[in-house]
Amino acid sequence: MEKTLKDLFIEEIKDLYHAEKQLTKALPQMAKKATSEELKEAFEKHLKETENQITRLEQVFEELDMAPRGKKCEGMEGIIEEGKDMMEELDKSDTLDAALIAAAQKVEHYEIASYGTVRTYAKQLNFPKAAELLQETLEEESAANEKLNELAMNINIEAAEGVEKEKEE
Amino acid sequence: MEKTLKDLFIEEIKDLYHAEKQLTKALPQMAKKATSEELKEAFEKHLKETENQITRLEQVFEELDMAPRGKKCEGMEGIIEEGKDMMEELDKSDTLDAALIAAAQKVEHYEIASYGTVRTYAKQLNFPKAAELLQETLEEESAANEKLNELAMNINIEAAEGVEKEKEE
Repeated sequence: MEKTLKDLFIEEIKDLYHAEKQLTKALPQMAKKATSEELKEAFEKHLKETENQITRLEQVFEELDMAPRGKKCEGMEGIIEEGKDMMEELDKSDTLDAALIAAAQKVEHYEIASYGTVRTYAKQLNFPKAAELLQETLEEESAANEKLNELAMNINIEAAEGVEKEKEE
Repeated sequence: MEKTLKDLFIEEIKDLYHAEKQLTKALPQMAKKATSEELKEAFEKHLKETENQITRLEQVFEELDMAPRGKKCEGMEGIIEEGKDMMEELDKSDTLDAALIAAAQKVEHYEIASYGTVRTYAKQLNFPKAAELLQETLEEESAANEKLNELAMNINIEAAEGVEKEKEE
Protein backbone atom coordinates (compact mmCIF):
# COMPACT_ATOMS: atom_id res chain seq x y z
CA MET A 1 0.00 0.00 0.00
CA GLU A 2 1.18 3.50 -0.85
CA LYS A 3 1.23 5.69 2.23
CA THR A 4 2.39 9.24 2.66
CA LEU A 5 4.08 11.05 5.52
CA LYS A 6 0.69 12.67 6.20
CA ASP A 7 -0.86 9.22 6.70
CA LEU A 8 1.90 8.39 9.20
CA PHE A 9 1.30 11.70 10.94
CA ILE A 10 -2.43 10.98 11.29
CA GLU A 11 -1.79 7.45 12.55
CA GLU A 12 0.67 8.65 15.14
CA ILE A 13 -1.73 11.36 16.33
CA LYS A 14 -4.50 8.75 16.70
CA ASP A 15 -2.07 6.51 18.59
CA LEU A 16 -1.20 9.37 20.96
CA TYR A 17 -4.87 10.26 21.44
CA HIS A 18 -5.58 6.70 22.55
CA ALA A 19 -2.44 6.62 24.70
CA GLU A 20 -3.33 9.84 26.55
CA LYS A 21 -6.89 8.59 27.16
CA GLN A 22 -5.50 5.37 28.65
CA LEU A 23 -3.20 7.45 30.79
CA THR A 24 -6.06 9.53 32.27
CA LYS A 25 -7.40 6.24 33.64
CA ALA A 26 -4.05 5.01 34.97
CA LEU A 27 -2.82 8.22 36.65
CA PRO A 28 -5.53 8.44 39.36
CA GLN A 29 -4.75 4.84 40.35
CA MET A 30 -1.05 5.64 40.48
CA ALA A 31 -1.72 8.73 42.64
CA LYS A 32 -3.82 6.59 44.99
CA LYS A 33 -1.07 4.00 45.36
CA ALA A 34 1.75 6.52 45.95
CA THR A 35 3.07 6.76 49.52
CA SER A 36 5.10 9.95 49.09
CA GLU A 37 2.92 13.08 49.16
CA GLU A 38 5.19 14.72 46.59
CA LEU A 39 4.82 11.81 44.19
CA LYS A 40 1.04 11.77 44.67
CA GLU A 41 0.95 15.48 43.83
CA ALA A 42 3.19 14.97 40.79
CA PHE A 43 0.76 12.36 39.42
CA GLU A 44 -2.26 14.59 40.11
CA LYS A 45 -0.57 17.51 38.39
CA HIS A 46 0.30 15.33 35.41
CA LEU A 47 -3.33 14.16 35.16
CA LYS A 48 -4.39 17.79 34.64
CA GLU A 49 -1.62 18.27 32.08
CA THR A 50 -2.70 15.09 30.29
CA GLU A 51 -6.29 16.35 30.03
CA ASN A 52 -4.93 19.54 28.53
CA GLN A 53 -2.75 17.53 26.12
CA ILE A 54 -5.86 15.67 24.94
CA THR A 55 -7.48 19.04 24.16
CA ARG A 56 -4.37 20.00 22.16
CA LEU A 57 -4.57 16.77 20.16
CA GLU A 58 -8.23 17.62 19.42
CA GLN A 59 -7.05 20.98 18.06
CA VAL A 60 -4.54 19.15 15.86
CA PHE A 61 -7.33 16.94 14.49
CA GLU A 62 -9.25 20.15 13.78
CA GLU A 63 -6.35 21.59 11.78
CA LEU A 64 -6.37 18.33 9.81
CA ASP A 65 -10.17 18.64 9.26
CA MET A 66 -10.75 15.39 11.07
CA ALA A 67 -12.90 14.25 13.96
CA PRO A 68 -10.72 13.19 16.95
CA ARG A 69 -10.32 9.42 16.97
CA GLY A 70 -8.01 7.09 18.81
CA LYS A 71 -6.28 3.97 17.54
CA LYS A 72 -5.31 1.17 19.88
CA CYS A 73 -1.79 1.91 20.96
CA GLU A 74 0.04 -1.34 21.68
CA GLY A 75 3.20 0.32 22.91
CA MET A 76 1.52 2.35 25.61
CA GLU A 77 -0.82 -0.54 26.43
CA GLY A 78 2.14 -2.83 27.09
CA ILE A 79 3.83 -0.23 29.28
CA ILE A 80 0.66 0.41 31.32
CA GLU A 81 0.04 -3.34 31.61
CA GLU A 82 3.56 -3.79 33.05
CA GLY A 83 2.87 -1.01 35.56
CA LYS A 84 -0.45 -2.53 36.62
CA ASP A 85 1.05 -5.96 37.28
CA MET A 86 3.60 -4.30 39.46
CA MET A 87 1.07 -2.23 41.41
CA GLU A 88 -0.88 -5.39 42.20
CA GLU A 89 2.23 -7.23 43.36
CA LEU A 90 3.48 -4.56 45.77
CA ASP A 91 2.18 -3.14 49.05
CA LYS A 92 2.31 0.59 49.78
CA SER A 93 5.95 1.40 50.49
CA ASP A 94 8.99 3.32 49.31
CA THR A 95 9.67 0.36 47.01
CA LEU A 96 6.25 0.70 45.40
CA ASP A 97 6.94 4.43 44.96
CA ALA A 98 10.23 3.61 43.25
CA ALA A 99 8.40 1.19 40.95
CA LEU A 100 5.67 3.75 40.19
CA ILE A 101 8.35 6.25 39.19
CA ALA A 102 10.04 3.70 36.93
CA ALA A 103 6.70 2.92 35.23
CA ALA A 104 5.84 6.60 34.85
CA GLN A 105 9.23 7.33 33.29
CA LYS A 106 8.62 4.64 30.68
CA VAL A 107 5.32 6.33 29.88
CA GLU A 108 6.97 9.76 29.65
CA HIS A 109 9.72 8.49 27.39
CA TYR A 110 7.21 6.77 25.13
CA GLU A 111 5.40 10.09 24.82
CA ILE A 112 8.60 12.08 24.35
CA ALA A 113 9.52 9.81 21.41
CA SER A 114 6.03 10.08 19.88
CA TYR A 115 5.55 13.81 20.36
CA GLY A 116 9.05 14.44 18.99
CA THR A 117 8.12 12.45 15.89
CA VAL A 118 4.76 14.16 15.27
CA ARG A 119 6.16 17.62 15.99
CA THR A 120 8.79 17.01 13.28
CA TYR A 121 6.16 15.59 10.88
CA ALA A 122 3.89 18.63 11.48
CA LYS A 123 6.72 21.01 10.68
CA GLN A 124 7.74 19.15 7.55
CA LEU A 125 4.14 18.83 6.34
CA ASN A 126 3.59 22.53 6.99
CA PHE A 127 0.99 22.45 9.75
CA PRO A 128 2.48 25.27 11.85
CA LYS A 129 -0.29 25.45 14.45
CA ALA A 130 -0.13 21.71 15.06
CA ALA A 131 3.67 21.88 15.28
CA GLU A 132 3.41 24.55 17.97
CA LEU A 133 0.79 22.66 20.01
CA LEU A 134 2.81 19.44 19.83
CA GLN A 135 6.00 21.24 20.81
CA GLU A 136 4.23 22.62 23.91
CA THR A 137 3.19 19.13 24.95
CA LEU A 138 6.66 17.76 24.23
CA GLU A 139 8.13 20.31 26.63
CA GLU A 140 5.56 19.44 29.30
CA GLU A 141 6.40 15.74 28.98
CA SER A 142 10.12 16.44 29.28
CA ALA A 143 9.50 18.56 32.38
CA ALA A 144 7.35 15.82 33.90
CA ASN A 145 10.16 13.33 33.28
CA GLU A 146 12.71 15.68 34.89
CA LYS A 147 10.48 15.99 37.97
CA LEU A 148 10.34 12.19 38.20
CA ASN A 149 14.15 12.03 37.96
CA GLU A 150 14.32 14.35 40.94
CA LEU A 151 11.77 12.37 42.97
CA ALA A 152 13.57 9.11 42.10
CA MET A 153 16.73 10.40 43.76
CA ASN A 154 15.01 10.91 47.14
CA ILE A 155 12.50 8.10 47.10
CA ASN A 156 14.86 5.37 45.90
CA ILE A 157 17.37 6.36 48.54
CA GLU A 158 14.70 5.79 51.18
CA ALA A 159 13.83 2.44 49.61
CA ALA A 160 17.53 1.49 49.53
CA GLU A 161 17.92 2.55 53.17
CA GLY A 162 14.96 0.30 53.99
CA VAL A 163 17.02 -2.57 52.58
CA GLU A 164 20.04 -1.55 54.67
CA LYS A 165 17.91 -1.35 57.83
CA GLU A 166 16.61 -4.85 57.20
CA LYS A 167 20.19 -6.11 56.87
CA GLU A 168 21.08 -4.53 60.23
CA GLU A 169 18.07 -5.89 62.11
CA MET B 1 4.12 -9.15 49.12
CA GLU B 2 7.15 -7.40 50.60
CA LYS B 3 9.60 -6.47 47.90
CA THR B 4 12.82 -4.55 48.11
CA LEU B 5 14.53 -2.15 45.76
CA LYS B 6 16.91 -4.99 44.93
CA ASP B 7 13.98 -7.12 43.78
CA LEU B 8 12.87 -4.27 41.51
CA PHE B 9 16.41 -3.94 40.20
CA ILE B 10 16.57 -7.64 39.32
CA GLU B 11 13.15 -7.56 37.65
CA GLU B 12 14.07 -4.55 35.57
CA ILE B 13 17.35 -6.16 34.50
CA LYS B 14 15.48 -9.32 33.44
CA ASP B 15 13.00 -7.16 31.54
CA LEU B 16 15.85 -5.40 29.72
CA TYR B 17 17.58 -8.69 28.96
CA HIS B 18 14.43 -9.94 27.27
CA ALA B 19 13.90 -6.59 25.52
CA GLU B 20 17.41 -6.55 24.05
CA LYS B 21 17.07 -10.15 22.87
CA GLN B 22 13.81 -9.24 21.10
CA LEU B 23 15.58 -6.30 19.56
CA THR B 24 18.39 -8.42 18.09
CA LYS B 25 15.65 -10.20 16.12
CA ALA B 26 13.87 -7.01 15.02
CA LEU B 27 16.91 -4.93 13.96
CA PRO B 28 18.04 -7.13 11.02
CA GLN B 29 14.49 -6.95 9.62
CA MET B 30 14.48 -3.19 10.03
CA ALA B 31 17.85 -2.90 8.28
CA LYS B 32 16.53 -5.03 5.42
CA LYS B 33 13.45 -2.84 5.01
CA ALA B 34 15.32 0.48 5.11
CA THR B 35 15.69 2.32 1.79
CA SER B 36 18.27 4.87 2.91
CA GLU B 37 21.78 3.43 3.03
CA GLU B 38 22.57 5.59 6.06
CA LEU B 39 19.56 4.28 7.96
CA LYS B 40 20.43 0.70 7.05
CA GLU B 41 23.94 1.24 8.38
CA ALA B 42 22.58 2.86 11.56
CA PHE B 43 20.44 -0.23 12.25
CA GLU B 44 23.34 -2.58 11.53
CA LYS B 45 25.60 -0.61 13.84
CA HIS B 46 22.95 -0.65 16.55
CA LEU B 47 22.61 -4.42 16.21
CA LYS B 48 26.29 -4.78 17.12
CA GLU B 49 25.83 -2.37 20.03
CA THR B 50 22.80 -4.33 21.20
CA GLU B 51 24.77 -7.58 21.24
CA ASN B 52 27.40 -5.83 23.32
CA GLN B 53 24.70 -4.49 25.65
CA ILE B 54 23.44 -8.04 26.18
CA THR B 55 26.96 -9.03 27.24
CA ARG B 56 26.98 -6.11 29.71
CA LEU B 57 23.68 -7.26 31.18
CA GLU B 58 25.21 -10.72 31.61
CA GLN B 59 28.04 -9.10 33.56
CA VAL B 60 25.47 -7.36 35.75
CA PHE B 61 23.78 -10.71 36.46
CA GLU B 62 27.22 -12.01 37.39
CA GLU B 63 27.75 -9.20 39.93
CA LEU B 64 24.36 -10.18 41.38
CA ASP B 65 25.44 -13.85 41.53
CA MET B 66 22.65 -14.84 39.22
CA ALA B 67 22.35 -16.73 35.95
CA PRO B 68 21.18 -14.41 33.13
CA ARG B 69 17.45 -14.78 32.59
CA GLY B 70 14.87 -12.74 30.73
CA LYS B 71 11.34 -11.89 31.73
CA LYS B 72 8.68 -11.18 29.13
CA CYS B 73 8.74 -7.46 28.59
CA GLU B 74 5.26 -6.27 27.61
CA GLY B 75 6.31 -2.68 27.01
CA MET B 76 8.98 -3.50 24.45
CA GLU B 77 6.80 -6.24 22.97
CA GLY B 78 4.00 -3.74 22.33
CA ILE B 79 6.40 -1.27 20.75
CA ILE B 80 7.95 -3.92 18.48
CA GLU B 81 4.48 -5.23 17.58
CA GLU B 82 3.46 -1.72 16.49
CA GLY B 83 6.58 -1.45 14.36
CA LYS B 84 5.98 -4.84 12.73
CA ASP B 85 2.39 -3.98 11.74
CA MET B 86 3.68 -0.87 10.14
CA MET B 87 6.49 -2.62 8.24
CA GLU B 88 3.94 -5.04 6.79
CA GLU B 89 1.62 -2.23 5.72
CA LEU B 90 4.20 -0.15 3.89
CA ASP B 91 6.26 -0.64 0.73
CA LYS B 92 9.92 0.36 0.57
CA SER B 93 9.95 4.15 0.39
CA ASP B 94 11.02 7.32 2.17
CA THR B 95 7.74 7.04 4.09
CA LEU B 96 8.65 3.57 5.33
CA ASP B 97 12.04 4.92 6.37
CA ALA B 98 10.32 7.71 8.32
CA ALA B 99 8.13 5.10 10.02
CA LEU B 100 11.12 2.87 10.82
CA ILE B 101 12.83 5.83 12.47
CA ALA B 102 9.72 6.62 14.52
CA ALA B 103 9.50 3.00 15.69
CA ALA B 104 13.22 2.85 16.50
CA GLN B 105 13.00 6.07 18.52
CA LYS B 106 10.22 4.55 20.64
CA VAL B 107 12.49 1.58 21.28
CA GLU B 108 15.42 3.85 22.18
CA HIS B 109 13.31 5.94 24.55
CA TYR B 110 11.95 2.83 26.23
CA GLU B 111 15.52 1.71 26.80
CA ILE B 112 16.70 5.15 27.92
CA ALA B 113 13.95 5.15 30.58
CA SER B 114 14.80 1.61 31.73
CA TYR B 115 18.58 1.95 31.74
CA GLY B 116 18.24 5.29 33.57
CA THR B 117 16.18 3.53 36.24
CA VAL B 118 18.50 0.54 36.70
CA ARG B 119 21.63 2.70 36.65
CA THR B 120 20.14 4.74 39.53
CA TYR B 121 19.08 1.56 41.39
CA ALA B 122 22.57 0.07 40.97
CA LYS B 123 24.16 3.20 42.43
CA GLN B 124 21.78 3.33 45.35
CA LEU B 125 22.12 -0.39 46.07
CA ASN B 126 25.90 -0.07 45.89
CA PHE B 127 26.73 -2.20 42.87
CA PRO B 128 29.38 0.11 41.39
CA LYS B 129 30.46 -2.16 38.54
CA ALA B 130 26.87 -2.69 37.41
CA ALA B 131 26.21 1.07 37.67
CA GLU B 132 29.17 1.74 35.39
CA LEU B 133 28.17 -0.88 32.80
CA LEU B 134 24.58 0.38 32.75
CA GLN B 135 25.73 3.98 32.42
CA GLU B 136 27.81 3.00 29.37
CA THR B 137 24.79 1.43 27.71
CA LEU B 138 22.60 4.41 28.63
CA GLU B 139 25.03 6.70 26.81
CA GLU B 140 25.07 4.43 23.77
CA GLU B 141 21.27 4.42 23.64
CA SER B 142 21.16 8.22 23.87
CA ALA B 143 23.70 8.51 21.07
CA ALA B 144 21.70 6.07 18.92
CA ASN B 145 18.59 8.20 19.50
CA GLU B 146 20.48 11.38 18.56
CA LYS B 147 21.64 9.74 15.33
CA LEU B 148 18.01 8.85 14.53
CA ASN B 149 16.98 12.47 15.18
CA GLU B 150 19.54 13.53 12.62
CA LEU B 151 18.43 10.96 10.05
CA ALA B 152 14.77 11.90 10.63
CA MET B 153 15.51 15.45 9.56
CA ASN B 154 16.78 14.40 6.12
CA ILE B 155 14.61 11.39 5.44
CA ASN B 156 11.31 12.94 6.51
CA ILE B 157 12.01 15.96 4.35
CA GLU B 158 12.37 13.62 1.37
CA ALA B 159 9.13 11.87 2.34
CA ALA B 160 7.37 15.24 2.72
CA GLU B 161 8.74 16.34 -0.66
CA GLY B 162 7.31 13.14 -2.10
CA VAL B 163 3.91 14.33 -0.86
CA GLU B 164 4.44 17.74 -2.46
CA LYS B 165 5.47 16.13 -5.74
CA GLU B 166 2.29 14.04 -5.75
CA LYS B 167 0.25 17.20 -5.20
CA GLU B 168 1.95 18.80 -8.21
CA GLU B 169 1.54 15.85 -10.53
